Amino acid sequence: MARKILVAQGGGPTAVINQSLVGAALEARRFKDIAHVYGARHGVRGIVNEDLVDLGQESTANLEAVAATPAAALGSTRDKPDRKYCQEIFRVLRAQEIDTFFYIGGNDSSDTVRIVAEEGARENYPIRAIHIPKTIDNDLVGFDHTPGFPSAARFVAQAFMGANLDNNALKGVYCAVVMGRHAGFLTAASALARKFPDDGPHLIYLPERVFSVDKFLADVKATFDKFGRCVIAVSEGVHDAAGKPILAQLAGELEKDAHGNVQLSGTGALADLLCQEVKNKLGISRVRGDTFGYLQRSFVGCVSDVDSREAREVGEKAVQYAMFGASNGSVAIRRVGDYAADYPLIPLEEVAGKTRVMEDEFINAEANGVTPAFRDYLRPLIGAPLPEVARLRGAEVARKAG
Amino acid sequence: MARKILVAQGGGPTAVINQSLVGAALEARRFKDIAHVYGARHGVRGIVNEDLVDLGQESTANLEAVAATPAAALGSTRDKPDRKYCQEIFRVLRAQEIDTFFYIGGNDSSDTVRIVAEEGARENYPIRAIHIPKTIDNDLVGFDHTPGFPSAARFVAQAFMGANLDNNALKGVYCAVVMGRHAGFLTAASALARKFPDDGPHLIYLPERVFSVDKFLADVKATFDKFGRCVIAVSEGVHDAAGKPILAQLAGELEKDAHGNVQLSGTGALADLLCQEVKNKLGISRVRGDTFGYLQRSFVGCVSDVDSREAREVGEKAVQYAMFGASNGSVAIRRVGDYAADYPLIPLEEVAGKTRVMEDEFINAEANGVTPAFRDYLRPLIGAPLPEVARLRGAEVARKAG
Repeated sequence: MARKILVAQGGGPTAVINQSLVGAALEARRFKDIAHVYGARHGVRGIVNEDLVDLGQESTANLEAVAATPAAALGSTRDKPDRKYCQEIFRVLRAQEIDTFFYIGGNDSSDTVRIVAEEGARENYPIRAIHIPKTIDNDLVGFDHTPGFPSAARFVAQAFMGANLDNNALKGVYCAVVMGRHAGFLTAASALARKFPDDGPHLIYLPERVFSVDKFLADVKATFDKFGRCVIAVSEGVHDAAGKPILAQLAGELEKDAHGNVQLSGTGALADLLCQEVKNKLGISRVRGDTFGYLQRSFVGCVSDVDSREAREVGEKAVQYAMFGASNGSVAIRRVGDYAADYPLIPLEEVAGKTRVMEDEFINAEANGVTPAFRDYLRPLIGAPLPEVARLRGAEVARKAG
Repeated sequence: MARKILVAQGGGPTAVINQSLVGAALEARRFKDIAHVYGARHGVRGIVNEDLVDLGQESTANLEAVAATPAAALGSTRDKPDRKYCQEIFRVLRAQEIDTFFYIGGNDSSDTVRIVAEEGARENYPIRAIHIPKTIDNDLVGFDHTPGFPSAARFVAQAFMGANLDNNALKGVYCAVVMGRHAGFLTAASALARKFPDDGPHLIYLPERVFSVDKFLADVKATFDKFGRCVIAVSEGVHDAAGKPILAQLAGELEKDAHGNVQLSGTGALADLLCQEVKNKLGISRVRGDTFGYLQRSFVGCVSDVDSREAREVGEKAVQYAMFGASNGSVAIRRVGDYAADYPLIPLEEVAGKTRVMEDEFINAEANGVTPAFRDYLRPLIGAPLPEVARLRGAEVARKAG
């Protein structure tokens, strides 16, 4: 019987998420027994609404252009199906005679794939369900890394290269907040911005370690005393020993100072509050904060070529696993050699709803930076070398004015 | 008598400010009667401190690498000399027998050049003083545009291309705050992000027009009703009819809600407050804000090739004007034909301390966008075409589930 495949995309965008979509769509054209490859608009919501597009009617030229475009071309959703939602899904899948489902997304999406597969068995609608990975957070269990992370990491590294040069030209303290609520990989990627021994980021704070404002201030002071400046990367997810977000802690303290209802995410508040702490408690005058926000996940024109290639390949492999194999699963990326990648299909239960955080060997003992092992891990992923930056050698002119 | 040139850099960084420095340093090597080209570290402060480096001892290879590096390689300063400061400057210039001074910077720096030249005449220390332009704000009077602006404009356009794709995948309202306190050119550059008829930014607010929060909310509602989403570019300098910054106005209103001492610059507060207005008053749930902050002026790896070339050339021309001419001045950029640039030396008084704002013909009648004339103005400056983005054609699948 001719196969019918449905692809959808879930969760936040990445720079290469459409490589996976196009990889699946084009790979499917090789198979005579695939009758159709459909796409659902805005993830599982598009299935429920029967809002489907026929990817078989897309030209290859346009698909290639879409592949190089950031953010889900099919649209995305944050919906997470429960049993009732799944029944709606199967009603549409039955009507359309779809037997294979690919969902491109992160841990939430992999859990959606698991739920759809489980409910399908229960509802007597057996469906091949394969999770195609993507997330800038790099937090999928069982993966060496996830598509989308290397390109976002490249953006973060290039942003800190510039911020470090800026801070070196006009000295002071610079603190930028990077995405990553539970996993610090993206914040840690800032470490690749360093070239000269006194380059920033000088301090990197990750959600894998307890954040103490006092320790932070002591670290900043020590760096500032040494270099006359300080560049800091902070994960949005930093928290105290009780797990309370630092943003809530600082905003709470400031409540007395009329700073009450600062919202806890999607704002520039954490950077602003940390900067205020540095100004008030260390008496440093030039203190600047940034929040990288949405730029880091969808900026057009900053992509890792390795990431693009791998994102394409996990989409292609999903089709192959669907055609040559009999199992559901998640198309993982494993590192072999130094550096090559393999794409085993791993059980959905290994991935679904779990969160990988940074391994201990990647974080320094002082909990304010990364180890050489982390740089070794990250370097091959970001692809082509980062842009080169240089300094004047600066031969001093002898003083004559006395 | 052999000439001695001193170069310095002032104000905020740009992506191409070192092209101008290296242009001057390398051009000077052609002239046998230039004995030395020195650089002052951290602008005029480096002169006063006699903290000078010999650019003649830099290798050409390293200078070329420095040219491609963002942010002032000599370091920068916000110092603005008064008479006493100038006397300190002349004490060092006399001791070092420097007869020619180049200052690479924006309007403040051009005013510094004017003051140094005037005080030099008064103090009986005649000095050739030439201003080499740079500023991402594009606000120098007498210029078609300024080096540094096209590269920052390119960053802003690419950032909004991504933000628009992100917002199209996960619909809602997105509002990003762009630098430019008095001149809206950089915010306006977001218009180049549009490709398809429903692409954002849908609304662009500039400091050249009075900003009304009510009008803003009405605009956002109209756009959201039409497209189901809305992407907005706002200049940090937007203000009410009385000239009061909107940030101060909103923060003031919110004071009653315990939002008091929000600082008025270098923070993510304006984006946060505008988003809060949209949420509270329009009842839209997915509202996200970003503040581009320092990324837009120093990001490594996003440069206009036209900008690089022109920044190099204004540095070279400064040396030529110093050697072949007898006047002080500012090396301006004038547009000839479509598109070529000329570099006349214009009087410092025409530039110094003045601020150009966007011409009326560049701003739409509704004061929430730019005109085709602005796009025509900007397009040749950003150099190589922007990265291409594409959409699925999206042939609909016939409904069968009913």
